[in-house]
Amino acid sequence: MSHTIAIDCMGGDYGPSVTVPAAFTFLREHPEARVILVGQEAKIRPFLATGRDCSGRYEVVHADDVVAMDESPTLALKNKKKSSMRLTLNLVKSGQAEASISAGNTGALMAMSRFVLKMLPGIDRPALCPVMPTADGHFYMLDLGANVDCDAQHLLQFGIMGAMLAASLDHNERPRVGLLNIGEEDIKGNEMVKEAAILLRASDLNFIGNVEGDGIYHGEADVVVCDGFVGNVALKTSEGLARMLGEALKQEFSRSLLSRLIALIALPVLKRFKARFDPRRYNGASLLGLRGLSMKSHGSADVVAFAHAIARAHEAASNQVVERISAKLAELRRRQQAAGGEAYEPEEEESE
Amino acid sequence: MSHTIAIDCMGGDYGPSVTVPAAFTFLREHPEARVILVGQEAKIRPFLATGRDCSGRYEVVHADDVVAMDESPTLALKNKKKSSMRLTLNLVKSGQAEASISAGNTGALMAMSRFVLKMLPGIDRPALCPVMPTADGHFYMLDLGANVDCDAQHLLQFGIMGAMLAASLDHNERPRVGLLNIGEEDIKGNEMVKEAAILLRASDLNFIGNVEGDGIYHGEADVVVCDGFVGNVALKTSEGLARMLGEALKQEFSRSLLSRLIALIALPVLKRFKARFDPRRYNGASLLGLRGLSMKSHGSADVVAFAHAIARAHEAASNQVVERISAKLAELRRRQQAAGGEAYEPEEEESE
Repeated sequence: MSHTIAIDCMGGDYGPSVTVPAAFTFLREHPEARVILVGQEAKIRPFLATGRDCSGRYEVVHADDVVAMDESPTLALKNKKKSSMRLTLNLVKSGQAEASISAGNTGALMAMSRFVLKMLPGIDRPALCPVMPTADGHFYMLDLGANVDCDAQHLLQFGIMGAMLAASLDHNERPRVGLLNIGEEDIKGNEMVKEAAILLRASDLNFIGNVEGDGIYHGEADVVVCDGFVGNVALKTSEGLARMLGEALKQEFSRSLLSRLIALIALPVLKRFKARFDPRRYNGASLLGLRGLSMKSHGSADVVAFAHAIARAHEAASNQVVERISAKLAELRRRQQAAGGEAYEPEEEESE
Repeated sequence: MSHTIAIDCMGGDYGPSVTVPAAFTFLREHPEARVILVGQEAKIRPFLATGRDCSGRYEVVHADDVVAMDESPTLALKNKKKSSMRLTLNLVKSGQAEASISAGNTGALMAMSRFVLKMLPGIDRPALCPVMPTADGHFYMLDLGANVDCDAQHLLQFGIMGAMLAASLDHNERPRVGLLNIGEEDIKGNEMVKEAAILLRASDLNFIGNVEGDGIYHGEADVVVCDGFVGNVALKTSEGLARMLGEALKQEFSRSLLSRLIALIALPVLKRFKARFDPRRYNGASLLGLRGLSMKSHGSADVVAFAHAIARAHEAASNQVVERISAKLAELRRRQQAAGGEAYEPEEEESE
């Protein structure tokens, strides 16, 4: 079955110079796929020449406006109805595309995705779920930044959504779901996390209990659940530490003429080490809990990284992530209602 | 002025075989200092021979009992009144020592320190504050594990205590205090963090606003304030990532005969890299908010690491950390009372 991915070509630090060639890279690797390139036609056109071999498999949809990287999400939602980001999401809403991808302003993408695609019943706001590397694999972690005042019910929803994402992208039907905590024992953690553990244990997820910060990179869980504040801190702390260590390694290898010579000799090994954790391979975070597929690429993505993110969006679309999440959440609501309790009702959705 | 450090010789993974030689290493580097070695005399005695040159500068205080590494803090508090950990703290309480250090059970050390030394007015529980490395320096981060359900007032206290620790240990009178958050703007973060930012800004600390996870390893702040849950996740995530990267680097350098040969050539550079972030140099976390000085060493510390922790305890004692924290907190209480509000009153202290 052929899937169409809508691409916001104007987002990210490099715009069409990255997004358009990346779309062609993706098309070459996915012969059955199609893309819709959304953005200012005059800026996209110069890059179309690189994709002559893909003709007939893409179309360009013109969008007048662009959401700036530093624009307020609220203002973008109000004023940028003709932006490439908005039209990209509209294509998913109307069914012309099965998934959308943007490297643009995260806050604006969240707000617009929520407004255009709408949330699934029982979900307040989209959760951001990236892929993270382990020594010989990867894991999904959510939420990473959107939901900062979470309760236990949110964490349960994150567990469900993350598990369905892992099942869809990795064909892992019983992904191990772990709860990020400060100890492995049930008695550890703050009140919210303790309550979430009870909810997760009562769910039919493959819940493995608490995982600690040092266990996540050890591959202890396929899905790591945490609130958006903690997740964001963990992710950025990791990025900062990795950068510091990388720079220090570089410094040590360029400290003297001799160490520069050694660096030359060690180059193939160092390159292999670097390639192993190449963040470009992990590009493409999913916004989960929406009625359609919206993916986020890192703003600084290059062609390789952005092509990876499109491929991930395509994989998610091919494996019905949204339908699976929706079905699982509906099941949860039924069970909660049957148990006599009220199903969790989120706050009212904001209007434009 | 001569300072005496009380050492719990039985704590940690290696007990007296590490703690006693480390004490002598410390004494050799600090000719004016004295130590009291606390623990089972029969187990300590075999290691005293290594310190003949230090005779007259140490004494041994026998303690019958030992707190096990996996013992419940509550039970240890109740049943281990004659343990080396407890007697070590008693020596600080009675004024025979100016600081104590233990590599034992963290929870038990927290509970006992709180019970024996008592909290400063207005403080609920001790905060754990380790030293963390940056590319070319270090920073203090608190709280790292003890306080998991914090409010804004706790974060303000952490800021005050961390600043006084940095001032004492680094002779940095205006350390930059940052609030760990998920964005640099004031509007970011959860409600607690936003409220804490207001309190910190109103204090007379050198508050530089929010710092993000990737900024802390970049040396953006001298003191990083966060709640115990977030701090513990950030610390352990960092440890896990560093371990994964270290192991991967080792793997790449031992993948083939050629890469093992390259590793041999690169060894001096790799060693220098490793030495730069040697965790042993950062050993010795402070329990802050107590009426006396109690320090925690990593349980797996070796002689070098434990000697570093003793030296840090000595430096803290020499620079009146407790007195400075106490004075600053008293000032805060006066100001809060003068402002018409009630001074913050902690929960009742638990009894034995």
